Amino acid sequence: MGKNLTTRSEDYSKWYNELVVKADLAENSGVRGCMVIKPYGYAIWEKMQAELDRMFKETGHQNAYFPLFIPKSYFSKEASHVDGFAKECAVVTHYRLKTGEDGKTIEVDPDAKLEEELIVRPTSETIIWDTYRGWVQSYRDLPIMVNQWANVVRWEMRTRLFLRTAEFLWQEGHTAHATEKEAIQEAEQMMNIYADFAENFMAVPVIKGVKTANERFAGAVETYCIEALMQDGKALQAGTSHFLGQNFAKAFDVKFANKEGKQEHVWATSWGVSTRLMGALVMTHSDDNGLVLPPNLAPIQVVIVPIYRNDEQFDAISEEANELMKSLRKLGISVKYDNRDTHKPGWKFNEYELKGVPVRIAIGPKDLENGTFEIARRDNLTKEIIAKDAVVEHVQNLLEEMQKALFEKALNYRAEHITEVDSFDEFKEVLEGKGGFISAHWDGTPETEDKIKELTKATIRCIPLDKKEEEGSCVLTGNPSKGRVLFAKAY
Amino acid sequence: MGKNLTTRSEDYSKWYNELVVKADLAENSGVRGCMVIKPYGYAIWEKMQAELDRMFKETGHQNAYFPLFIPKSYFSKEASHVDGFAKECAVVTHYRLKTGEDGKTIEVDPDAKLEEELIVRPTSETIIWDTYRGWVQSYRDLPIMVNQWANVVRWEMRTRLFLRTAEFLWQEGHTAHATEKEAIQEAEQMMNIYADFAENFMAVPVIKGVKTANERFAGAVETYCIEALMQDGKALQAGTSHFLGQNFAKAFDVKFANKEGKQEHVWATSWGVSTRLMGALVMTHSDDNGLVLPPNLAPIQVVIVPIYRNDEQFDAISEEANELMKSLRKLGISVKYDNRDTHKPGWKFNEYELKGVPVRIAIGPKDLENGTFEIARRDNLTKEIIAKDAVVEHVQNLLEEMQKALFEKALNYRAEHITEVDSFDEFKEVLEGKGGFISAHWDGTPETEDKIKELTKATIRCIPLDKKEEEGSCVLTGNPSKGRVLFAKAY
Repeated sequence: MGKNLTTRSEDYSKWYNELVVKADLAENSGVRGCMVIKPYGYAIWEKMQAELDRMFKETGHQNAYFPLFIPKSYFSKEASHVDGFAKECAVVTHYRLKTGEDGKTIEVDPDAKLEEELIVRPTSETIIWDTYRGWVQSYRDLPIMVNQWANVVRWEMRTRLFLRTAEFLWQEGHTAHATEKEAIQEAEQMMNIYADFAENFMAVPVIKGVKTANERFAGAVETYCIEALMQDGKALQAGTSHFLGQNFAKAFDVKFANKEGKQEHVWATSWGVSTRLMGALVMTHSDDNGLVLPPNLAPIQVVIVPIYRNDEQFDAISEEANELMKSLRKLGISVKYDNRDTHKPGWKFNEYELKGVPVRIAIGPKDLENGTFEIARRDNLTKEIIAKDAVVEHVQNLLEEMQKALFEKALNYRAEHITEVDSFDEFKEVLEGKGGFISAHWDGTPETEDKIKELTKATIRCIPLDKKEEEGSCVLTGNPSKGRVLFAKAY
Repeated sequence: MGKNLTTRSEDYSKWYNELVVKADLAENSGVRGCMVIKPYGYAIWEKMQAELDRMFKETGHQNAYFPLFIPKSYFSKEASHVDGFAKECAVVTHYRLKTGEDGKTIEVDPDAKLEEELIVRPTSETIIWDTYRGWVQSYRDLPIMVNQWANVVRWEMRTRLFLRTAEFLWQEGHTAHATEKEAIQEAEQMMNIYADFAENFMAVPVIKGVKTANERFAGAVETYCIEALMQDGKALQAGTSHFLGQNFAKAFDVKFANKEGKQEHVWATSWGVSTRLMGALVMTHSDDNGLVLPPNLAPIQVVIVPIYRNDEQFDAISEEANELMKSLRKLGISVKYDNRDTHKPGWKFNEYELKGVPVRIAIGPKDLENGTFEIARRDNLTKEIIAKDAVVEHVQNLLEEMQKALFEKALNYRAEHITEVDSFDEFKEVLEGKGGFISAHWDGTPETEDKIKELTKATIRCIPLDKKEEEGSCVLTGNPSKGRVLFAKAY
């Protein structure tokens, strides 16, 4: 029974694009580069949101909401920020349409031109720091620990569902602190929260590190990141947390009176993860049969499919199914009973495999006789016959086991795909061979990084936080280096 | 101890504007007409969202996300829809900025002009129905029961925080059905859910009805609404649910094969509530001392304020407070202990009154001696001394009582402000006097409704669903009428 899905080995990129659409996660819209997130995909995103939101609130953050539009002039106030975003900004220039002269078409009303153009936010530092100026007078007003869930727009020429879209959904935290130390701690804390979320909810192992100057956020002093590895050996930046120094406070004149009454500029962080995480989730675990979802993020954790030949059997099975659903729901497990008579069991099996439902329970006439259910797990496609009295506990354990197994599997894959290399030939060989992260010495200059990128398309994904002190020589220039950094091709 | 707040009788409008800002709900931003929703205000909105989202999901709806931008041409496809929204659309015309010739300023890059302008969604019927075309083939694909939480933009010339802003947050449900009957039932169901939410969570009594043709949503066959009454005698439309007939299905060619295999156009509804509800909440309950929040929507339901002269007292009080917090939280009551030593108790009392925290508990040295706490309720500003063993139960009951009391108070106010009138002189007299809803006969023509609006600024808020059959003559024209409708000046 085929899913008609391109396999990963045939064409990884095509496999991904097809899978996202066929599993009902998202699709392209009539608006160039903008996606529609379909209900099944959005349900996964909602689970991500709920968990992240809980983690943010537990660490003292509150949500707020800032305007979608940013006056053009705000952008120029932080020099490197505008350089980073100017080339991909959607710009609102008018505020009214009118009927054309033919009385039918509509056109932009030239009389309704804005005095100052508005940028659709690509990120909100500028509008938020313009606001914070009014919120901060004294050290008593600090810290400000605010997050917002929002849509942002970055006009991309080449887009891919979830991974790179003109509009995407994200959260952006923006905090303000009295001291540099506190701001750095906050930026590090948020990186750790992202890593915790990625590993324990998404089952995606990540490497924590800092970005090189080349890859740093436009306006940041330091960018912390978590980097994941996809099944095709390419890296994916899964979240970033920026220590912004006093750059935005200076650009927007945000000062506070310290305990001694002296005026100082405020210290800042910002941090975000986006619907890009959906892409990372799909690409880390899924296989040629479709999605594989970690139980912690699966909208449906268990599906029950009845197999019957007549109404009598159907009724008896439904009774068992309803009983089972009740017991599973009591444990907080989300379960669906697919009792549609419009589709055959085989079709349903296929469908739930494609959609990555972790556990499938089939109940047929034999099971009624024997007091058993058939339990299939999505990750390794194995099946077991389980006595029905033991099913609830079995399923509960299975969900925990699968969550761990998915993480372990991804962790093993990554372990096999971090390669230490000491020559540039080896570098290129590994990169074009099995891919993955390449751990190599680098002389610390942006020029060398650029050159390597030009020659190989690999960039420095991060300088790992657990980097070992190690004398070495740069893989390209031979110049001295004090430790290895991680290179990879990246999404 | 003054809040420095304009009183309602001095200037209701000014009172509202000041209160929203002083209670930290929202403020104007640097972007004309766009607001910043501050953390305290956003926390109330989050409570509204959570409750509404629960109600939507319980009735079979799922969330999804559609693009922010709508190609201009989509708008012209439904004729009355474009007429309704064209005059207030923010239009994206370019997708890039560049550095100006001075090397400093940035300007819109004229080479980056979009082929087709994009409208920032004022509502999403067009982009959603363009998407639904791909989702519907047969009756098996119906109904589609989808909602989205999103920001929308309607370019308003005169804006007011929450009530009318260029950008606002809302939810918009968009459903597709096989039959007219089912779609009408859905539209009615959603109106009932909104009414249930308004009355039981916001404690805001509402009248259910349908709009006249003049006030109908652009593109709807019937607009159901809930109408609330503010303390200044003006009405506020708090939610609408539209039966859209086959208008959008025809405009976007969305057909399905029915059970007999015949192609039919799909039937539609859409329904929404917005951050405008925040304005309704504030204006219904609050008083000259500040916000009054119904316990069901208060981010902080109980605040504990210690009153002490020395560390020993503070420690003893804190012990009591911590104990009390634990007990209240076990019951799901949100409670804050304000142990800041930077502010005096009187300042805190004032602050929590301004912010509408329903219950304030003060603990002082006397209370330690006597084994009592002082409990103050925000709605009627009364205080009681309660034995500490009885406090938890007392507070729990108090919260329920206040929720009911606020609704009753608002209901009484409304009852006193629905006036039946039978002459146009009386109509004008009541309108300019106590205001409120005026129940009057109307001849059913848009011309009469327009004329009355021109003469008095009052519009027909709704034709109530519980309208009594009653022969009468139109309050303006004397022409025959079969029942009374509700007029009011409105926000």
